[in-house]
Amino acid sequence: MSVNPRVAAIEPSVIRALNDRKKPSSIDLGMGEPSLFPTMRYFELATQWVSEHGCRYSPNAGQAELREAIAEHYRYPNLDAAENAIVTPGSQEAVYIAIKALLDPAKDALMVVEPAFPSYAKCAQMEGIALERVPMVAQDGFAFDAERIAAAITPQTRMIVICSPSNPTARTMTRAQCEQLARALLARGGEPVYVLHDEIYRELLYADDAGWFAEIYPHTIVVNSLSKSNALTGMRIGWALAPKTVAPMMLRAHVYVVATSNTFAQRIALEIFRTPHGLEEHAAFYHEQRNAAARALDDAGLRYAPIDGSFYAAVHVGDGVATLPFAQQLLEEADVVAIPGSIFGASFEGWLRCSWVAPIERVREGFLRIAGKATVRRTP
Amino acid sequence: MSVNPRVAAIEPSVIRALNDRKKPSSIDLGMGEPSLFPTMRYFELATQWVSEHGCRYSPNAGQAELREAIAEHYRYPNLDAAENAIVTPGSQEAVYIAIKALLDPAKDALMVVEPAFPSYAKCAQMEGIALERVPMVAQDGFAFDAERIAAAITPQTRMIVICSPSNPTARTMTRAQCEQLARALLARGGEPVYVLHDEIYRELLYADDAGWFAEIYPHTIVVNSLSKSNALTGMRIGWALAPKTVAPMMLRAHVYVVATSNTFAQRIALEIFRTPHGLEEHAAFYHEQRNAAARALDDAGLRYAPIDGSFYAAVHVGDGVATLPFAQQLLEEADVVAIPGSIFGASFEGWLRCSWVAPIERVREGFLRIAGKATVRRTP
Repeated sequence: MSVNPRVAAIEPSVIRALNDRKKPSSIDLGMGEPSLFPTMRYFELATQWVSEHGCRYSPNAGQAELREAIAEHYRYPNLDAAENAIVTPGSQEAVYIAIKALLDPAKDALMVVEPAFPSYAKCAQMEGIALERVPMVAQDGFAFDAERIAAAITPQTRMIVICSPSNPTARTMTRAQCEQLARALLARGGEPVYVLHDEIYRELLYADDAGWFAEIYPHTIVVNSLSKSNALTGMRIGWALAPKTVAPMMLRAHVYVVATSNTFAQRIALEIFRTPHGLEEHAAFYHEQRNAAARALDDAGLRYAPIDGSFYAAVHVGDGVATLPFAQQLLEEADVVAIPGSIFGASFEGWLRCSWVAPIERVREGFLRIAGKATVRRTP
Repeated sequence: MSVNPRVAAIEPSVIRALNDRKKPSSIDLGMGEPSLFPTMRYFELATQWVSEHGCRYSPNAGQAELREAIAEHYRYPNLDAAENAIVTPGSQEAVYIAIKALLDPAKDALMVVEPAFPSYAKCAQMEGIALERVPMVAQDGFAFDAERIAAAITPQTRMIVICSPSNPTARTMTRAQCEQLARALLARGGEPVYVLHDEIYRELLYADDAGWFAEIYPHTIVVNSLSKSNALTGMRIGWALAPKTVAPMMLRAHVYVVATSNTFAQRIALEIFRTPHGLEEHAAFYHEQRNAAARALDDAGLRYAPIDGSFYAAVHVGDGVATLPFAQQLLEEADVVAIPGSIFGASFEGWLRCSWVAPIERVREGFLRIAGKATVRRTP
């Protein structure tokens, strides 16, 4: 059978394999999506709109009003016009077209700041683009370290992917660290290095010093969606914001990858952007749940990285612990799903990614069961 | 600015450029989507479902019930199980992942049977996959010719794309011609050649001898969507049906291109598949409109290829006529949008692709204005 060897080389998802073995009784700390429900009013408004206008193609880059609303909402310098926005079916396609359209497989490398969600590396692998990995480390609590990132840059580095707030570490990159990295990149000269800032957990933020590259660094591409902020993972509605010279190049790929995004989903997004604080509707829930999860981790005696953002916690289960078999055993023996750190990068081995969006008593019980299996405890 | 040169080399769409110059007064025979409205009941049912279940991620390949419903509906031999189906955000992504995952840019070629919608060739171009074009010709009324296709196959050919009913010619490939091509492909030996059958206009069918490769040839991949059958172009809900050994490879690419399809759109699709004759809800309209359009073409004295399927007509405007400037002039001087044949392949030069989904009196007037500009008329 004929195949593209670069696609054939991609390994099946560990997260999915674990999820497939989940039982109805399992405590699920593995999930990467909200347990909340979306606001149904948006569905009703979008349905009404379709009944009046039909459900026709939108322009390839998205509906003009939505592109404008997105750009207006963030008001990032040089990314604040409709033409900077490309509406995508979720942030995954936004990441994909950024990597695909902007990097030359013949000479460019993608740098991934680890621990990182595996999809950035898999996109590069699928495109035949060289990969550079720069690990943030446990002794710093996986804090984003601009100096370490800057030092890892090579002449081939053409894009750096940073997910902040981070999946899986829950850390955010501080404004000072973003500024330091921006200075290093600008001082470097030559062809600019893009920063791809994945802001998917932007609305789930608990730190007060988070930095946004788009406010600081001119060669930033932002990707985001309404999946996490509005419990709309299944609506597949995201976007990229890119400089005016860059967006048209991403659009060329977008046209032949998916043609255009869902018109109904775009109406829902437009209603949300037009609603005051529409993107923050679940922020209070997450704040409260985060504090409760941190208390539960403390009570279980587990060591974890500071929870600056997202709905995850990076939980230490022991130095030298191989977390893939650990997670398998945790599921079989303690009926808890958590994601092994190793899949996010070598520096995250010994740690688990635990989401805390389940009912808090379930989360609490899950942490207690993890503590029962962990080889280390926090010193009291 | 760094770019992927293969993406940078893709030329902007001529169809879009023409559409951008359309005026409110224009007669639009350029559009590639229904003018009908979708059935709102499906939106209400899907909204109700979301209110009960949330709008969460579906599995990467799509919801199990929908995959099963799709496979069950068509009952193609060896494509009749849920695992043969991958749900995609429209048929474009299905085409993209088929080409991307199954062809090796280092050695394989994609054969496009022309005249053809430009997106197949653009996908190959973007992936660095060699392209082979085999033209169907005007003297045959652009009938699909198995012998001509088989004769064009080279040792590099690894996939043949056939869109039947055809965009842009409105011809269908007969069952006898499909069987003849299948025999030639099977007789060839060696590594099998995939047939990618784009069935997007399957429900808009007026010929009674159309062939479906999936019923005939084991190495067929089918792509389709609800865009045209159910006036849901904006819902972005399509699928691929692929053999059991092939589908998992396409899924690997799908996961990193878009992750998964829209859950709401999948519920709409499931309701349509579960409704008796749900996919045929607009078939009677298209039958009637097709006959009226044919009468209007006859009355205008225009030569056109037999309209076997789709909502297009291939209209002859003169041998040696350069249709790109012709179409521009037609818009400026006669206020009619039609798509120049040249963009679908060299053999379609001298012809226009005209859709006939506008109100029939507008379609009739459009054809009359084209006849006024055409350099040839049909002999009465």
